[in-house]
Amino acid sequence: MASSEPGAHMTPSTNKYSNRVILKTIFERSDGGVGFAGQRVVIGGWVKSSREMKEEAELSQNVGTKDARCMEVLRFPLLRSILKALRGEGDSRVHQKMDLDVPKPPRPALTLLQLSDGSSLHRLVVLVSSELASPSQILPTGTCILVEGTLQQPALQMKHVIELKADRILHLGTVEPNSYPLTKKQLRLEFLQNYPHLRARTSTVASVMRIHSAITRALHAFFQDNEFLFVQVPTITTTLTRGSSNKYLVNPILDIQEASNEAKAEFSKNFFPQQMYLTDSGRLHLEAQACALGNVYTYGPRFQAKKSLPEMLIVEAEMAFSKLEDAMNCADDLLKFICKWILENSTEDVKFLSKRTDKSIEDHLRLMTSCSPEKISYTEAVKLLNQATEKKPGNSMEWGVPLTDEHASYLVDKIYKKPVIIYDHPKNLKPFNVRLNDDEKTVAAFDIIFPKFGTLVSGSQSEERLNTLSSRIEEFGLSKQHYEWYLDLRRHGTVQHSGLSLMVDSLVLFATGLYDIKDVVPFCTTPI
Amino acid sequence: MASSEPGAHMTPSTNKYSNRVILKTIFERSDGGVGFAGQRVVIGGWVKSSREMKEEAELSQNVGTKDARCMEVLRFPLLRSILKALRGEGDSRVHQKMDLDVPKPPRPALTLLQLSDGSSLHRLVVLVSSELASPSQILPTGTCILVEGTLQQPALQMKHVIELKADRILHLGTVEPNSYPLTKKQLRLEFLQNYPHLRARTSTVASVMRIHSAITRALHAFFQDNEFLFVQVPTITTTLTRGSSNKYLVNPILDIQEASNEAKAEFSKNFFPQQMYLTDSGRLHLEAQACALGNVYTYGPRFQAKKSLPEMLIVEAEMAFSKLEDAMNCADDLLKFICKWILENSTEDVKFLSKRTDKSIEDHLRLMTSCSPEKISYTEAVKLLNQATEKKPGNSMEWGVPLTDEHASYLVDKIYKKPVIIYDHPKNLKPFNVRLNDDEKTVAAFDIIFPKFGTLVSGSQSEERLNTLSSRIEEFGLSKQHYEWYLDLRRHGTVQHSGLSLMVDSLVLFATGLYDIKDVVPFCTTPI
Repeated sequence: MASSEPGAHMTPSTNKYSNRVILKTIFERSDGGVGFAGQRVVIGGWVKSSREMKEEAELSQNVGTKDARCMEVLRFPLLRSILKALRGEGDSRVHQKMDLDVPKPPRPALTLLQLSDGSSLHRLVVLVSSELASPSQILPTGTCILVEGTLQQPALQMKHVIELKADRILHLGTVEPNSYPLTKKQLRLEFLQNYPHLRARTSTVASVMRIHSAITRALHAFFQDNEFLFVQVPTITTTLTRGSSNKYLVNPILDIQEASNEAKAEFSKNFFPQQMYLTDSGRLHLEAQACALGNVYTYGPRFQAKKSLPEMLIVEAEMAFSKLEDAMNCADDLLKFICKWILENSTEDVKFLSKRTDKSIEDHLRLMTSCSPEKISYTEAVKLLNQATEKKPGNSMEWGVPLTDEHASYLVDKIYKKPVIIYDHPKNLKPFNVRLNDDEKTVAAFDIIFPKFGTLVSGSQSEERLNTLSSRIEEFGLSKQHYEWYLDLRRHGTVQHSGLSLMVDSLVLFATGLYDIKDVVPFCTTPI
Repeated sequence: MASSEPGAHMTPSTNKYSNRVILKTIFERSDGGVGFAGQRVVIGGWVKSSREMKEEAELSQNVGTKDARCMEVLRFPLLRSILKALRGEGDSRVHQKMDLDVPKPPRPALTLLQLSDGSSLHRLVVLVSSELASPSQILPTGTCILVEGTLQQPALQMKHVIELKADRILHLGTVEPNSYPLTKKQLRLEFLQNYPHLRARTSTVASVMRIHSAITRALHAFFQDNEFLFVQVPTITTTLTRGSSNKYLVNPILDIQEASNEAKAEFSKNFFPQQMYLTDSGRLHLEAQACALGNVYTYGPRFQAKKSLPEMLIVEAEMAFSKLEDAMNCADDLLKFICKWILENSTEDVKFLSKRTDKSIEDHLRLMTSCSPEKISYTEAVKLLNQATEKKPGNSMEWGVPLTDEHASYLVDKIYKKPVIIYDHPKNLKPFNVRLNDDEKTVAAFDIIFPKFGTLVSGSQSEERLNTLSSRIEEFGLSKQHYEWYLDLRRHGTVQHSGLSLMVDSLVLFATGLYDIKDVVPFCTTPI
C-alpha cells in the first residue's frame, strides 16, 4: 500500500517547472504506481505506440476492477448517458444528445496511447475518448500530448498496473506522418544517426542519454567526495599538448552586414595577438591550478580535427604532490565508482540495453567494481606480444612504435581478459610534458585499455624539472615562447604532480554495450 | 577534545591520491586542529610568508606549553646535544659535533613558514630547522615544500593553535626570486591579470576559485535535485541563435610537416560540408533533447567574438511543457539555491573576500535567498524610465531600443533596490526562436538584472508554432536550410517549452564582490 511504503506520498508531486507529473515519479514506487489510483494528474509526453478501440469493449474490460467508478462499469452507453444527466454529470453535448427520438449517436471511440516522457523507460497507458481528440490526430507515433485526467487501475487482464483516463487535453503537437522518420518500431541505430535531433525519442537512445547523464553525475560526485576543486579551462588557446597534428584554428569574424570588407579583415587580423586553436587537452591549464590549489578537475569538450569525432567530451584531473602510481590509483577508483554508480542508479536502463545491445553489460560493470586492471609496462607488453607471435616470422613488434588496436585487443581480450594498464611508454609516443623516466627512453604515462573499447583513460606524471621540460619542448619542435607561462610553473615552486583524462563518450559506450561512438555522442553528425 | 567532537578522527586522514594531509581537513575541525597535536603527518604547500629566527628564541617561546617535549624546552643547545647523544637521538652530524674541544658549532637557525595548499584560507605554520634546509632556499614566497613532521601546539603567546615541527623534507621546489612576480603582499588584481597561471597562489584569487567551484557544484545539485538530465551539446555548429554578430569560424588544419600544401588545402576544404562556428548558445540543441527527455541542462563554454571575454561559461536548462513564467520561477529558485549554498559552504571565503573587496557580499547573498526579483515588462520599464527623466528634455527613451547599462542600473539600484526581471522584450531585441506574444510586437523573453552586475540570467519560452518560427527565421535573414533540423522539432510532436541561461562568470563576480570579469575567469588573458 502506498501509505506504508517508506517515503511514498499519497499524491504524485507535480514537477515545479513543467506543471506535470513526471512519469518516473509514478513508476519508481515499489508498487509501480498503483497507490496513486484515483489521483488527478497532468501528464505530458510523446506517443510511443497507440491503438484505437471501441469504448464499449474497453469498458467491459474494466468490469470487476475495484476502484472503477460506478459510471465506468455500465455496459450500455445510452443508459449511462441518462444516468449521467440525472446526476448532473457530463458536458452540454451529452445533454443535447439525450433526446430519445434522435437516432443513436455514434459511440465515441477510445484511443489507447502508450506515452513516454523520457524520464524513465516506463510508458503510461493513456485512454483518450474521441470526444476529446480525433484519433487520427493522436494515433501517430511521435505525437506530443499534455493531458489531465485520473489515474486508475486497469482491468485485471491488462499488463500494466496503472493507467490514465484523460478528461482534458491541454496541448496537442501532431506529427506530419509522411515526413516523420521514426514511425517504425525497432529502427537501426545507424539509421538514427541521421536524426540526432529526434533520436532521443527512441527507447534505446533515451536510455543511452540517461546513462550519459548518470555518468556525468557520478564523475562530479567522485571528484567532489575526494576534495577536488572544479576549475574551468580555456577552450581557445595557443598551448596544445601535441605538436604536429590535426587541429582547429579559430578565426574571429565580424559578421555585420554594414561593415566594410576592410573593417572585417582588420577585425579578424587584430582580434588575437597570435594564432589560436581549440584546445586538445585541459591538463596544461589544470596544472597551473593544481600548483596553487592542490587537487583540481575539469570537464568539457576537447578537440582534434578528426572527422569521426570532431569533438570529444573529456573529464580531466590534476593532483599536486602526486606521482604516476597515484594517478593510476585515482583512475582505477574513479572507474570503480562510476561502474558502481551506474549499477545502482541506472538499473532499469542497463537491463533494457543489455537485452537490446550486449547481454554482458551488467557482468562487465560488476567485474569493474570488484577487480583492478592488470598493470604492465610498455616494454613488458612488447615482450608478451612478441612471444605470442614468435611462431609467425615477420610478425615481431619493434620497441618504440605505438600499440595497434590489434595489439591492445590481444593483451586485453586474449591474455588478461580484463582491463589492462600499460605504463612507461616510449617518450616519442606521449606529449612533451610527460615526465622523463631515469632510463631517458620512457616517460611516466599510462593508458587503461578496455576490452573492445580501447583506451578509456590516459594519465601521466608531469615533468616537474625545468631543464628537462625545456629540452623536451625543443625536442618536440614546439615554440618555446608559447610555453613560457607553462615553464613558469617549474621556475617557481615546482611540484611533482600527476593527472588523468577520461574519455566520457567511450565510457558511455562501455556502459551501454554499444560499439559506434556516433550512437552515444548526442549530436553526432555535422552539420548540426 | 577531539574524541568528543562529532565525526572527528584522532588521526588526520591522508589524501588518497597525493600522499599528504590536506590542510582543510586539519582546520575544519571545530577545535582548529588542536586535537591532532602529537600526530605525524606529511604536509605540502607553497610558502605564503616566512621568517628566520634563532632556534633559541623560538624555543624559549615554547616554555610552559603543556605538550612541548622535553628536548624542546632546554635553553642550552650544547646541553641538548649532549642529552640527545646520550639518548641515541640526533643524526650522525650531531654526534660528530659532540667533541667538547671543538669550537661551539653555529646554532641551527629555525625557519618559520606559513604554508598554504589552496584547500582553504588557512595557513599552517611549519618550523624547519636549518639542518633540514637552507633558509635562503625555503624563505622566498612561492617556494613549494613537502614535509614530514609532528603536529604540535605552539607556545601560548602565538596566534595559531597548531603547527608542524618538520623533521624531513620530501620535496623542495624553489623560486627564482628575481623573476617571480608574486613576492609582494597585497598585489593589485589588475596586476595579477598578467599572471593567470600563477595568481591562484594568492589568497584572494584562491578564494574566488573555491567559490567558483562551489557554484559549479551547487548548479549541478540544483538541476539534479529537480530531475533534470545532463546533456552535452556541440561546441562546433552551424546553428547559431544570433544572425549577424561577431563569431568564431572554425578551420580544421592538417598540421603534419610532411603533408603537401595541396593535401593541407584539401583537408581544410573538405573537412566540414559547410562553414562551422563556435556555438553562441546551447539552447537550440538542448531543445531537441527536451523534446524527448523532458527537463535537461548543460554546462560549458559559449562564444561571441568579444575581446573582453572571448569565451563565456554558461549553464543552460530547457524544460518541456513549460512557459515563460516557469522559466522565471526556475531561474529565481536556482539563484536562491546557489546563494544559500555559498553562504553555507563557502562561509570563510565569503567572509575573507568581504574584507578585501566589498563588505556587503554576505548581505547581498542573504537578500537573494529570501526575496524574489521584482518583475516588470519591458514596456513598463520604458514608461518608468521616461517618467524618471521627463523633467530632462531630450532624454526620453524610445520603445524598441535596448536598455542601456544606465537604464538597467536606474531600475535596479535606484527604483527597486533589488534584482529585477524584465520580460516581454521587443521582438527584434531577442533571438529568432523566442516565442512571439499575441501583440506580435514583443516576445516571451526575460532578463534578470542584478545591482552592479547587469544581466545574470536570460530566459525565454521558445516558439513552438511551425509557421511562426519559419517566418521569424526569414525575418532574421537566417539560412533556413541550417535550421531545418530545428524546424523538425515543431513539425513533429511540438511542445511548449522554455529555458534559461545563467552566466556563471558573472555570478562568481556577484558572489565575490569583484567588478572585473577578468578577475574571476581562470585564464583571462589571451594568448595562454
